[in-house]
Amino acid sequence: MAQKPSIPKGTRDFNAEEVAKRSYIMETIKAQFQVYGFQPIETPSFENSDTLMGKYGDEGDRLIFKILNSGEFLKKISDNDYNSKSEGVLTSKISEKALRYDLTVPFARYVVQHQNEIEFPFKRYQIQPVWRADRPQKGRFREFFQCDADVVGSTSLFQEVEFIQLYDAVFSALNLEGVTIKINNRKILSGIAEVIGAQDKLIDFTVALDKLDKIGEEKVKEEMQSKGISEDGISKLQPLFILKGDFGNQIESLKAILSSSEIGLKGIEELEFINTAISNLKLKTATLQLDVTLARGLNYYTGAIFEVSAPKDVKMGSIGGGGRYDDLTGIFGLKDMSGVGISFGLDRIYLVLEELGLFPDTIADSTKVLFINFGENEAMACLQTVTKLRQNGLKAELYPDAAKMKKQMNYANRRNIPFVVLVGEEELKSEVFTLKNMNSGEQHKVEFKELERLLK
Amino acid sequence: MAQKPSIPKGTRDFNAEEVAKRSYIMETIKAQFQVYGFQPIETPSFENSDTLMGKYGDEGDRLIFKILNSGEFLKKISDNDYNSKSEGVLTSKISEKALRYDLTVPFARYVVQHQNEIEFPFKRYQIQPVWRADRPQKGRFREFFQCDADVVGSTSLFQEVEFIQLYDAVFSALNLEGVTIKINNRKILSGIAEVIGAQDKLIDFTVALDKLDKIGEEKVKEEMQSKGISEDGISKLQPLFILKGDFGNQIESLKAILSSSEIGLKGIEELEFINTAISNLKLKTATLQLDVTLARGLNYYTGAIFEVSAPKDVKMGSIGGGGRYDDLTGIFGLKDMSGVGISFGLDRIYLVLEELGLFPDTIADSTKVLFINFGENEAMACLQTVTKLRQNGLKAELYPDAAKMKKQMNYANRRNIPFVVLVGEEELKSEVFTLKNMNSGEQHKVEFKELERLLK
Repeated sequence: MAQKPSIPKGTRDFNAEEVAKRSYIMETIKAQFQVYGFQPIETPSFENSDTLMGKYGDEGDRLIFKILNSGEFLKKISDNDYNSKSEGVLTSKISEKALRYDLTVPFARYVVQHQNEIEFPFKRYQIQPVWRADRPQKGRFREFFQCDADVVGSTSLFQEVEFIQLYDAVFSALNLEGVTIKINNRKILSGIAEVIGAQDKLIDFTVALDKLDKIGEEKVKEEMQSKGISEDGISKLQPLFILKGDFGNQIESLKAILSSSEIGLKGIEELEFINTAISNLKLKTATLQLDVTLARGLNYYTGAIFEVSAPKDVKMGSIGGGGRYDDLTGIFGLKDMSGVGISFGLDRIYLVLEELGLFPDTIADSTKVLFINFGENEAMACLQTVTKLRQNGLKAELYPDAAKMKKQMNYANRRNIPFVVLVGEEELKSEVFTLKNMNSGEQHKVEFKELERLLK
Repeated sequence: MAQKPSIPKGTRDFNAEEVAKRSYIMETIKAQFQVYGFQPIETPSFENSDTLMGKYGDEGDRLIFKILNSGEFLKKISDNDYNSKSEGVLTSKISEKALRYDLTVPFARYVVQHQNEIEFPFKRYQIQPVWRADRPQKGRFREFFQCDADVVGSTSLFQEVEFIQLYDAVFSALNLEGVTIKINNRKILSGIAEVIGAQDKLIDFTVALDKLDKIGEEKVKEEMQSKGISEDGISKLQPLFILKGDFGNQIESLKAILSSSEIGLKGIEELEFINTAISNLKLKTATLQLDVTLARGLNYYTGAIFEVSAPKDVKMGSIGGGGRYDDLTGIFGLKDMSGVGISFGLDRIYLVLEELGLFPDTIADSTKVLFINFGENEAMACLQTVTKLRQNGLKAELYPDAAKMKKQMNYANRRNIPFVVLVGEEELKSEVFTLKNMNSGEQHKVEFKELERLLK
């Protein structure tokens, strides 16, 4: 192969610094997941196709990566089926497994499969890659990690409260201050649709409403009209477009709009409970904000809907989201299991921390000291010392070859190794080491104890 | 879907305890990789098929999981090709990507692709899953993690020395004492083949020799004969079958056998250097042992060959292996890059630690304290305290529902939560907490400061 190798589009290699930064985010999230009482699970990268297919809509089905059956995969296909030369017919015959598309469906499958081993309510977290055959674009990849925490088996609104606290705790721990945790409730959207006589147009209605920030009030109304929502209905929405003030004031306006809708009032009650609790508990650095236009994954959520936006001065879509779904495991035959969960957008959080310079300086610190190799005898003596340092947990290296001094120093420089030890014949006899600080250029002679102290 | 869902054969779900134990092993390995100056990289789960195909032999090609192209994957196939109904013809047309089969080929691809950003010698580690369409059996899975460390760009034997130290450091850190690090050298095998006039039968010869432990001297000789190795040649091997004593003695015997083989003597010289260095440096808990029958992946290695066996009282295949390959990146067009590396067998190490009871007791410790939920007001007050504890890094939970006391206590019991806090109306007023030790059954009243102290 003469041509330089490459990787599939939408995938990425990560170098040491990137791995370190990504794992800093993941470890921070993981630590808070654990503090909040969530337990880790891991599921296989591929599932049986029938576990995944049909769970994400037609578009989802298309975006699921299918794995070709091994061996004689054409053998079991009838001539009729084969001669149809149809992807639809063939796919299910030649592929029985598919790569995980998200962590929620595998989680639901896990809960049903292991229901007898699980203590409910079951608080689980899962940090694993997922794959989607999406068209790759800036910030959208075909392989990416999801970081999810969910509780299944309790309808208590304290869960929603704790998830808001968890978002706040994670972003505070990442020093990412000023994120906005937006909250809405599917029941409020249903209530509004009811009030304006558009129960059957809930999706059209929320899709239009969702654009309020982008296209403005007039265009939103036009779109609603074009979807067949009556002018009378739209006029009842007027207070919605001018919902102002803090959480409490907005709730009062919503109460006025939704006074005739039972489900709408239920949604308001839930939001009030959550808001009161959060006001009592106080968030460290995040702000909780009611956003009636928030609709994400509407067909999915049945109660609370969450979305987190980066601080205002950063241009970036949502960096987290989630919500409650009343029948998480029903798709696998286990009824009445309410679930609520949130997800962290690793790649976007990465970009935000990068843009704001919030990664700790020491994050990618690797080797602390390089021992220069002056030849076999010296190197052997060095390795004795390197071994001792390593046994005490210090990251130390011996340059493997007796290469030119300049080459070895360059290696230390380019690797950002802050200290270099030079042990020549003279030092070998006297058992002192010449320690060079690569930043200041200073060098002085030290004994082992001192060397160890300085490196720590 | 009425039927209980399942996962593909050869794959596994991991529960909280298993995740914790696996990550204990991986974190221990990772910490030593870093102390030894290795840097992490990560590569995509799937590669372009031409990156992987043809790199692992015919058997390997068959065991690689191929990913079906998305969309209209039949469109580009000619009628001729289609009508052949041949898996061989179709596979490359309908699949352009394949799941990673090991970490070495992707590493070689990475090095070539990023050669201008890399400082050589490049010491990288990589801990990621790989996939093989092998027939699943006890201890063999279709998805499993590999933990690899390799150096590329130096022929220095100090690398081999350090890898032996690294094995010793990792297994010592895991408290797995008494592992045997077996070493051989491809050059010695080549030398022996040369001496007995069977250069062209090196593979047959080593395959037979490799069975010495299992089938004994006579059967090995029979097998060699059946493969066409002359009786005269086999008789020259006699000293090989009675190689006894320590490393030094075995080396002396080998010198006698290989005195006429240049390459054989080179192999001996390398082994001697490594053995002398390790004798000087001393291993903590492992033993280095020369094993002339060790051949693993013969077509691959060109110098040192390593394999690690579990302590003698544990029945288990190798728990690690590796070696030197002189032309690691040649397959991708970058010549003269010698590589040497080792791998840790996560699944087998797991089984060994489990069998010997070596996992630390505290490894799967999750939630430390559960606050019993007596109703909305009490729960709200509890959540204040839970929040404070969490902010101080303590793993705490509030039971989300005001369920029956027995149910909540059962939850704590089954989750192995060691402490439970009961805050009823009375406690709410006096701001003291009743803390119950779930092991002893004792309970007493404490203030917050005391609560925090006891839980830490």
